Amino acid sequence: MRNKLTLYDLAAAEDDRRFSPCCWRTKMALAHKGLPHEAIPWRFTEKDAIAASGQGKVPVLVDGGATVADSWAIALHLEKSYPHLPSLFGGSSAMHLTLFINDWVDRVVLPALAPILAVDILAHLHPKDRQYFRATREKVYGRPLEEVSADRATRVVAFRNLLEPLRTVLRKQSFVAGDTPAYADYVPFAAFQWARCISPFKLLDQHDPISSWRLRMLDTFDGLAHRAPGYPV
Amino acid sequence: MRNKLTLYDLAAAEDDRRFSPCCWRTKMALAHKGLPHEAIPWRFTEKDAIAASGQGKVPVLVDGGATVADSWAIALHLEKSYPHLPSLFGGSSAMHLTLFINDWVDRVVLPALAPILAVDILAHLHPKDRQYFRATREKVYGRPLEEVSADRATRVVAFRNLLEPLRTVLRKQSFVAGDTPAYADYVPFAAFQWARCISPFKLLDQHDPISSWRLRMLDTFDGLAHRAPGYPV
Repeated sequence: MRNKLTLYDLAAAEDDRRFSPCCWRTKMALAHKGLPHEAIPWRFTEKDAIAASGQGKVPVLVDGGATVADSWAIALHLEKSYPHLPSLFGGSSAMHLTLFINDWVDRVVLPALAPILAVDILAHLHPKDRQYFRATREKVYGRPLEEVSADRATRVVAFRNLLEPLRTVLRKQSFVAGDTPAYADYVPFAAFQWARCISPFKLLDQHDPISSWRLRMLDTFDGLAHRAPGYPV
Repeated sequence: MRNKLTLYDLAAAEDDRRFSPCCWRTKMALAHKGLPHEAIPWRFTEKDAIAASGQGKVPVLVDGGATVADSWAIALHLEKSYPHLPSLFGGSSAMHLTLFINDWVDRVVLPALAPILAVDILAHLHPKDRQYFRATREKVYGRPLEEVSADRATRVVAFRNLLEPLRTVLRKQSFVAGDTPAYADYVPFAAFQWARCISPFKLLDQHDPISSWRLRMLDTFDGLAHRAPGYPV
């Protein structure tokens, strides 16, 4: 009998608005493996609830006796623990190469997107999380979040330019991983799902090849990502 | 019996100074496959010599009756034609993911590096290529090459920042492709080999994890890249 899987999943004021880009990586990975799970709504300030993970951020996956934090570690855990279910990567070489895409999203895409979304995230947060979010982020940016997001009409131009490697690949193949999506798609897609869940701001031109891929990704797994509460894209 | 392989390889004034980043991708790929080849020095203005390829750039590989242009097309040709020799990618999924890294280098790394190297390339070129190089590049930049490279002390800071995804991966694994190098390493390495062959300008801090990887790559295939005429790194 399979373990019950539990995911601590970042939520906004409403329980069902789940916006974390790293949690979306894990939710897409669980769907890829066909693993049902219970997703527990979690707020930034509920550090006690995930204390067993030895750190203070989600996603945290509890799989039987194992508590795993960090989306990449969770992906490796799922691949190793459920080798008979569809591979997240497509082999060992592909796993190493997916790490590059994972790190490209972490180092390039998310940092460019975060200031664009900052005010909209703040507006959606549970009241008990707002001061925490404002204080931690304003410490990084050195100015009020309202100012950080104020120039997003300019920032989004730079954001679109940064996506050029993804755009180039998606002109040549349907998914980053080839003909069918895999973890190399879930990681960049989760960044767009973060935006969709929390912000009405238009990120992409509709003629951008990334827009078509985003729609294909929203439809994947019977519209898993599309069914989540969010804004039109 | 195996076909004789011939590669048209961009050369500077001296026949043995071969600096093209895209030709270096192919030379590393041929070494990975263990395929000997004859590399013919070729200059930018010798369009007639590669007319059979239907375009005007190198690398061009002639493999028996096949003439293949474009480094990515050549990599796919080698993988398909010599499936019993070591794989350049490590499987079909890995091939699709390597394309992302290929496009990241094409769209992010090379455009940031080209202006840093421009004056040094010009200085090394065969006299018959200089006017062609200057005219085509100055049309892109809209100003003299000397001006384009003048601010390279500033440009290199931005260049190093752009490499952050590569740096992050190389903190976690020895090569982009994992424990041993593959085409996903040759593509970014070839950009650094371009620089090494043509320019004394220091690109990386010696403590950068990318520097250690670059040295490992220089040593690969019995020091193939290290033996090529170039500047100390």
